Amino acid sequence: MRSPQVRPAEGLPSRVTIYEVGVRDGLQNEKTIVPLDVKAEFVRHLEDAGVGVIETTSFVSPKWVPQLADAADLLAELGESGRVRTRPVLVPNPKGLDRAIEAGVSSIAVFGSATETFAARNLNNTLDGQFDMFGPVVERAKAEGMWVRCYVSMCFGDPWEGDVAPEQVVSVARRLMDLGCDELSIGDTIGVGTPGQVEAVLDGLLGAGIDLDRIAVHFHDTYGQALSNTLASLRKGVSIVDSSAGGLGGCPYAKSATGNLATEDLVWMLHGLGIETGIDLEKLVETSMWMAERLGRPSSSAVVRALGARG
Amino acid sequence: MRSPQVRPAEGLPSRVTIYEVGVRDGLQNEKTIVPLDVKAEFVRHLEDAGVGVIETTSFVSPKWVPQLADAADLLAELGESGRVRTRPVLVPNPKGLDRAIEAGVSSIAVFGSATETFAARNLNNTLDGQFDMFGPVVERAKAEGMWVRCYVSMCFGDPWEGDVAPEQVVSVARRLMDLGCDELSIGDTIGVGTPGQVEAVLDGLLGAGIDLDRIAVHFHDTYGQALSNTLASLRKGVSIVDSSAGGLGGCPYAKSATGNLATEDLVWMLHGLGIETGIDLEKLVETSMWMAERLGRPSSSAVVRALGARG
Repeated sequence: MRSPQVRPAEGLPSRVTIYEVGVRDGLQNEKTIVPLDVKAEFVRHLEDAGVGVIETTSFVSPKWVPQLADAADLLAELGESGRVRTRPVLVPNPKGLDRAIEAGVSSIAVFGSATETFAARNLNNTLDGQFDMFGPVVERAKAEGMWVRCYVSMCFGDPWEGDVAPEQVVSVARRLMDLGCDELSIGDTIGVGTPGQVEAVLDGLLGAGIDLDRIAVHFHDTYGQALSNTLASLRKGVSIVDSSAGGLGGCPYAKSATGNLATEDLVWMLHGLGIETGIDLEKLVETSMWMAERLGRPSSSAVVRALGARG
Repeated sequence: MRSPQVRPAEGLPSRVTIYEVGVRDGLQNEKTIVPLDVKAEFVRHLEDAGVGVIETTSFVSPKWVPQLADAADLLAELGESGRVRTRPVLVPNPKGLDRAIEAGVSSIAVFGSATETFAARNLNNTLDGQFDMFGPVVERAKAEGMWVRCYVSMCFGDPWEGDVAPEQVVSVARRLMDLGCDELSIGDTIGVGTPGQVEAVLDGLLGAGIDLDRIAVHFHDTYGQALSNTLASLRKGVSIVDSSAGGLGGCPYAKSATGNLATEDLVWMLHGLGIETGIDLEKLVETSMWMAERLGRPSSSAVVRALGARG
């Protein structure tokens, strides 16, 4: 394993927080339901590898996402009542928030849309209506002392609407922050964005008075652009990056590959740039290889494949 | 298909020349020997898609690389005596140059090493000795009026030596230019490099008086870093990038994945950044899907997979 450089390159953050989505976003998209004990072991392995923030599950309706029907049981199995800032849980609606509060969760994420069509299809709402829906959820979560993240989907392109204007993303993001969210995750849900668009959106967010330390980026590798877009974000000062251990969340061997950026590939770049992550890459690779065996197919992470071949 | 932006982002080149290596480097690494007529059709499809420079074959010994034993026949089949600047041919040694001259080739590439161990293993020579070997080849090629490129391998890491000092890469590159080479291709042969290293090497080359328009970059996606490293190179002003249609040159499904950067993934980023390439991406994707069918396995290009799934 190559040793990281001592100091980060000029203009880059010295440390990046990786927000790990493989357990929730990854396993949610698996065809099979992963057993609770495997999920819990996955979380523990990731934590042992130094992954600081792990989105652990979602209080979505089990009818919609049977893969995560064990949300409350998983949190109970993991212990500490989930009352740690480092294990956020996705909450899609007021009912999900009820369940999160009951489970003793201390940090949640909600899932908004930058486009009208995705708001209709994914939230069964309108672009404006989503704020009426999220408003009471965020307000109550904050009153409960929770930390709240908000995903903004389709920030760089939408399968139905095509290009998305940066101004529209900024407007949605600003309104979500005004509701009281602590952090935004700016998502390229279909993976079509390129670095110039990323810079335009980030410039817009900063221009709208949103602090850099409240902005995370979330890129998909559908068109191979995730890591380049991340690099462009780092150069703008972003220091929170979403990624998925082993690239879980989309099968590279399926025709409709929609994989998340693999945490290992991200860590390889960050450590190469001298940026601290707190992650032990060898342990992380071992974890993803272990999980790939459980899922019965190879990891889509290039680093996992490359280092796995050496072992 | 998304329409490119009108103007390139600040500080980036307005146009990039893609040096296509899929026909030579890609097919050389296939287990099966691709028939001559398929190779010729591949080259013609690529040219029809607007790919400007295509490394067409190699005059390497057929004993070592039987996949390219048809080098002279392929050039004859393609016509124009190969006497165009846009169809360079790899030439490993004086004997290869004899064959290239006989075939009427007008531009060649030679293949050097930035490290002692790779010079020993790949060139059966020493780091210093390679200049004695290439010197007469380059001199004779130039006397014949040829254009000469030189690859420099292992510029960012070596499987036996580990890290490679930027100063060593610069020293090798400078000596190759002093032999009379027209263009350098700075290669990350094992795909381990990250953007900070890329910037350090490029700074070193420019500091040694090598012109920007003589520097190409050649990245492998073994650790998922190829496109990020390309972006870092573009920001340094590099405007010649090596890539491989469909990512040919390493099977992503094999454990020892060593794929070249896929031309389609590169073009997606460049067009998104408003950088001209002269390439029709839809035609290129069709070509790579056609070639993938001939090879009997899916393309490793994310863009080919994503757009292919839509078709």
